[in-house]
Amino acid sequence: MQRQKLLVNGERLKQELERFADFGRTDNNGVTRLALSHEDRLARDHFRACCEELGLSVKIDDMGCMYATLEGTENVPPIVIGSHIDSVKKGGRFDGILGVVAGLEIVRTLIENNVKPRIPITIVNITNEEGARFEPSMMASGVLSGKFAKEVMIKKTDTEGITFEEALKNIGYDGDSDNRLTDATAFLELHIEQGPVLEQEKLSVGVVECVLGMVCYDIEVNGLSNHAGTTPMPMRKDALFVATDLLAEAREKLSVLDDKLVYTMGRMNVSPNIHTVIPNKVVFSLEARHQDEKVIEEVEDIIQSLTRSEAITEGCSVKATKLWGRDTVWFDQSVVEQVEEATKSLGYSYKRMVSGAGHDAQFLQSYIPSAMVFVPSQNGQSHCEEEYTTWEECERGVNVLLETVMGMLAKV
Amino acid sequence: MQRQKLLVNGERLKQELERFADFGRTDNNGVTRLALSHEDRLARDHFRACCEELGLSVKIDDMGCMYATLEGTENVPPIVIGSHIDSVKKGGRFDGILGVVAGLEIVRTLIENNVKPRIPITIVNITNEEGARFEPSMMASGVLSGKFAKEVMIKKTDTEGITFEEALKNIGYDGDSDNRLTDATAFLELHIEQGPVLEQEKLSVGVVECVLGMVCYDIEVNGLSNHAGTTPMPMRKDALFVATDLLAEAREKLSVLDDKLVYTMGRMNVSPNIHTVIPNKVVFSLEARHQDEKVIEEVEDIIQSLTRSEAITEGCSVKATKLWGRDTVWFDQSVVEQVEEATKSLGYSYKRMVSGAGHDAQFLQSYIPSAMVFVPSQNGQSHCEEEYTTWEECERGVNVLLETVMGMLAKV
Repeated sequence: MQRQKLLVNGERLKQELERFADFGRTDNNGVTRLALSHEDRLARDHFRACCEELGLSVKIDDMGCMYATLEGTENVPPIVIGSHIDSVKKGGRFDGILGVVAGLEIVRTLIENNVKPRIPITIVNITNEEGARFEPSMMASGVLSGKFAKEVMIKKTDTEGITFEEALKNIGYDGDSDNRLTDATAFLELHIEQGPVLEQEKLSVGVVECVLGMVCYDIEVNGLSNHAGTTPMPMRKDALFVATDLLAEAREKLSVLDDKLVYTMGRMNVSPNIHTVIPNKVVFSLEARHQDEKVIEEVEDIIQSLTRSEAITEGCSVKATKLWGRDTVWFDQSVVEQVEEATKSLGYSYKRMVSGAGHDAQFLQSYIPSAMVFVPSQNGQSHCEEEYTTWEECERGVNVLLETVMGMLAKV
Repeated sequence: MQRQKLLVNGERLKQELERFADFGRTDNNGVTRLALSHEDRLARDHFRACCEELGLSVKIDDMGCMYATLEGTENVPPIVIGSHIDSVKKGGRFDGILGVVAGLEIVRTLIENNVKPRIPITIVNITNEEGARFEPSMMASGVLSGKFAKEVMIKKTDTEGITFEEALKNIGYDGDSDNRLTDATAFLELHIEQGPVLEQEKLSVGVVECVLGMVCYDIEVNGLSNHAGTTPMPMRKDALFVATDLLAEAREKLSVLDDKLVYTMGRMNVSPNIHTVIPNKVVFSLEARHQDEKVIEEVEDIIQSLTRSEAITEGCSVKATKLWGRDTVWFDQSVVEQVEEATKSLGYSYKRMVSGAGHDAQFLQSYIPSAMVFVPSQNGQSHCEEEYTTWEECERGVNVLLETVMGMLAKV
């Protein structure tokens, strides 16, 4: 027998997203809501008020994560739905908050349809996903999953020297470690894609299979500074000439490695960076992401080969330093399948895809069966005021989550 | 009949150079003596005391330039010898000051040899050649020669908001515009080469024929920022990829233009310069110097061609903005010949050469017959604490100036 499908209220979803955007809305209709800031506090207060109005119990853990639970009829670990309330500076109205508001909208829909869930439903706001004020990103999920040491994290400071610990106390969200998320039936995170793939392929939903593994290196070239006007070309040891040759060589080698590989030289610093002085030092970052460990290994071989390149002219030297790397995180196959089934049953266009960006779900997956759902980002843009996902696509994404939850509730 | 040659006192010259290096000497035996700083004032006071001890009259003009004159037996415009006392931050012990101390040593030698010159000899310290504290460089010589407006220059501020005018008053060197250098028989500036040519060719002296003409452009590439992890390679509008392609294209075209051309991309700024974000904007400087106007024109054609390059991928745009340019300044042929004759007669190895760097002499040449003498820079380095010229080479350079002066005095 087929269940009757519940659908969320798209208008209410939109209004709630816009309500949250008021906490830190910028002149250009973006959002600045740094972790543990005044704006974050106001948004948290609003989230708590919404949950309490729905009769949920709200708990706070020692990293400031918020858990609002709709009780279930059975004493089993909850289905957890959520994401993060914090944003980057001049970010958008969707990144993170969409996943939290999705949880609210799902619980609202369940309650108004008088569904008494078998499994408890917990909406979660995970503190400081962005790492924009306190590095690193995914801080609280890192602590919850044991990847980061709490004692180290709470001492992290913002640019004004305020520690995470102080800021958490200042906004009144320093809770109890007993409240931490320790067990769950599943974790579901709805998020904007932050890339152009769904839009380009005219698809509504991305069923995310994994978060890509990556490596990030600094390539440092050292040469010798001299006067730009007085040093004949053959006598130069120009670090920028070597660096740009190496960058081109890396691009050439990486471009033929694998179609799905992405690689970026996002940062380049030239010293002394004066138009009349030959550069003596250039450092540029090279990061690459791919789901297959072997491809990442080949990338690292290419990076090492740069240090022996023929482009390194006499008097210049090159070193490559690995800043970090992470393995691909595969989401729980069963949960991913349930998400895919829900998407299909709703008749939405979709594809299985990878996440190039990092998300809290990748840490939580280490101890909770997790999956993610993506909705399209206009022009692939995020972390900027222009960030936009149509209200219809937001609504479809939340419906996928609701339908996934309904499927889980229906199982015995 | 051949004149008997006078030679300067090398030991005294060395001691005086080291004495001046005490005013702002750094831990690594360099010098920080920014224009109109406390260190500059102390060095000026010492210079004045030295001159007064020799019986010279010292005058100060309204830009703070100092003129110390040994009277001549005839009422004719003086032979002016000098350079600048100011240095860059963490500069060397030779740049500028060598040309001023040369003047002192020449007058000392004349006096101790009882030479009463026919033509007055004026030692000059020209204010703020470096432009390290108050931009632009060659400020005072620019005002003296009418290239720069005094009213604009004296309002220039340092990083602390102090104006040139205030700083000049603060050190007590605000003199009278009546004292400006308005006429001279010749201006002779001894300077370190600031390049590697003399050292590489094992020559003692450079007889400088001209200061190279140059152009400086900013090349700006605009693309689109997006997330480094989520944007497939074919969908990117990476400003850094285009910028480095254009830089390579410029290098290739410029490298075959002319052997004597020098070109430098000394400054490159990447935005937003974050390793996880595809760059949306890159600006780099491209400056080139050559004595021949036609070659500089070809350089400008190449720079313009970059804005139409095939390397500009879809969604990226490029513009080239000329920041400034200057024509080659040829020194006075007769004075250059007299310097060459003096060098030959002393038996020093030398070559005629160009100056890639700018110097006060290039402005003064517009109304005073001028020439410059270079001495070798170890490893071509300058504007750094390692800057070094052997004492012997310094001595030879001053001897060339003295012999040039003696030749001028001998003429009728």
